[in-house]
Amino acid sequence: MAQPIKFGIVGCADIARKLSRAIKLAPNATIVAVGSRFEEKARRFIADNGLPATTRPYGSYESLLDDAEVDAVYLPLPTSLHLRWAVAAAGKGKHILIEKPTALCVADLDQILEACETNGVQFMDCTMWAHHPRTAEMEDFLRNSDQFGQLKIVSSIASIYADSNFLQNNIRVKADLDSLGALGDVGWYCIRAILWASDYNLPKTAVAFPNAIKNEAGLILSCGASLHWEDGTIATFHCSFLAHLTFELVVVGSRGNLSLSDFVIPFEENSAPFTFVSDSGFKELVKGWKSLPSKKVVSTELPQEALMITEFSRLVGEIKDSGAKPEKKWSVFSRKTQVVLDAVKESIEKEFKEVEIVG
Amino acid sequence: MAQPIKFGIVGCADIARKLSRAIKLAPNATIVAVGSRFEEKARRFIADNGLPATTRPYGSYESLLDDAEVDAVYLPLPTSLHLRWAVAAAGKGKHILIEKPTALCVADLDQILEACETNGVQFMDCTMWAHHPRTAEMEDFLRNSDQFGQLKIVSSIASIYADSNFLQNNIRVKADLDSLGALGDVGWYCIRAILWASDYNLPKTAVAFPNAIKNEAGLILSCGASLHWEDGTIATFHCSFLAHLTFELVVVGSRGNLSLSDFVIPFEENSAPFTFVSDSGFKELVKGWKSLPSKKVVSTELPQEALMITEFSRLVGEIKDSGAKPEKKWSVFSRKTQVVLDAVKESIEKEFKEVEIVG
Repeated sequence: MAQPIKFGIVGCADIARKLSRAIKLAPNATIVAVGSRFEEKARRFIADNGLPATTRPYGSYESLLDDAEVDAVYLPLPTSLHLRWAVAAAGKGKHILIEKPTALCVADLDQILEACETNGVQFMDCTMWAHHPRTAEMEDFLRNSDQFGQLKIVSSIASIYADSNFLQNNIRVKADLDSLGALGDVGWYCIRAILWASDYNLPKTAVAFPNAIKNEAGLILSCGASLHWEDGTIATFHCSFLAHLTFELVVVGSRGNLSLSDFVIPFEENSAPFTFVSDSGFKELVKGWKSLPSKKVVSTELPQEALMITEFSRLVGEIKDSGAKPEKKWSVFSRKTQVVLDAVKESIEKEFKEVEIVG
Repeated sequence: MAQPIKFGIVGCADIARKLSRAIKLAPNATIVAVGSRFEEKARRFIADNGLPATTRPYGSYESLLDDAEVDAVYLPLPTSLHLRWAVAAAGKGKHILIEKPTALCVADLDQILEACETNGVQFMDCTMWAHHPRTAEMEDFLRNSDQFGQLKIVSSIASIYADSNFLQNNIRVKADLDSLGALGDVGWYCIRAILWASDYNLPKTAVAFPNAIKNEAGLILSCGASLHWEDGTIATFHCSFLAHLTFELVVVGSRGNLSLSDFVIPFEENSAPFTFVSDSGFKELVKGWKSLPSKKVVSTELPQEALMITEFSRLVGEIKDSGAKPEKKWSVFSRKTQVVLDAVKESIEKEFKEVEIVG
């Protein structure tokens, strides 16, 4: 069996605790180094998260990147730091698993992707739900034209209720660290889900909803938009730090529909449901529906984030051991998501003007 | 026990078959007359729907309205005829149960409501789901600030997949009969549900989504809009004749959320589900949700349309037998729905300009 992929974690953000566990759970990955601006913080992270005693703590991100044993880095840094550290990591030949949103704007992301391309390293963003087996099962339904028909409507809501501590102190609401706010954080998932539902066909335009809610620093706490394709397909999404935890996704085609209420973080780790129906209609005298929606529960031994690590590590292993090329689809998905996100942001800034989406 | 309320049915539209059954099921209502433009059609309707042989067929709407025994009329006429016949019926002292959309515009509806007011007759539109006991149970949840908190987001989809026969021949796509198309038909339910969720607080503005789909006569087959309150609450809806049967409603507050997938026509007649959750959040390391949504199934002996007839007849009975005043809330709900519908239509006509909603 091939050697597990050796990860360095660049930054000790809270989400890195979850991903450390995921790397430990993945059969083909291991953590060998943790970098922080303060070595003591890296050391504490290693101890607190039960990482092997051999894990090397670094007091700077540079020194972690100079560790020749590190195959791949996980970057949970604030979005404003992605460009600098992703480009630096790629320059050192490290494969890159990066938190979302991938960058502050698509121009920044393009620099990251170019650095990955130049250095032949794998790129993947941390949209974990994409790796849940439920996603593949739903895709089978959506791509089956007999069952689902042609895409017509997508509706998505992603909200996390932020307490006052979060609203005052979390990096996701600090303009200098993460200037995309709720749009970059939970909105990313909605946009990605909409693109996934549309088989990654970019919409033609985006129109933000009026009156996005911002904090004092001008950072988005709640917003939404409609996205429009030339064939009349419409998608809408709401993303918010001010509403109760909600991860709704409804996809409606001409012949069927599909819905789920936990698309970002499944209710439970080891199984995840979705509901779908095809070719229904009304009974005589509209006494009810001819066929009722079915619920399917998809089991998984590993949580979605560990499956993401497994897939990323598999791709890195193929590059490392078999001279394969990086899998491009993950950068394509990231880039399309960022392109739409940029258009929504522009529409918010231009008072919900219709903004053309240029891939 | 009081005499059952005696209904006249004005027009033999397909939906009148469903409502005839509802009137038969209601314990306090009965059908005594059916009017059509052709007496033969009225006669056939009486036979086909198993109405009592004593039911009087009329070859004109006027003659039905002149039947002194008729207490109340059910008006399933095309929307363009509502103004004329509702005003005429009220003028004859008939209580009015009217199909939705109530009128082509709020100015027309105001004439109808004024006629009802002047003549002291009850007015109610046929938003059947409002009368399902599920609706009351959901309302208890939504109005409970501990469980639901403050309203933040509403998302609704109502679509009925129309076959080519419907798209060519149904009155709901004929510009001269029902010029509101999908917006007036299924969109009505979305708007009403959004108002219901907001405790009938009118939004401040409406913005239609770009690129509503219209037929050759310019009639709306698919459209949508976002609605905006001053406190930042946003609702969106999609309505369509071009997408698979879908009746989704998601209501998100600061402390909880609620969702259902059959809000207009329940999957089954005698029981209807909804899902809700309060004060959830993530488990340690975001391994899942702290508390999972609960599903509640609400049973009913009578289908929602028979409950509507029962409630309408109860109100009529109180007016008739006890000298009570008409219950105003039903005209208030209708009028607010029509006001928002008008604003959405105006926004579509003005290329998704933001339109102020004036109650």
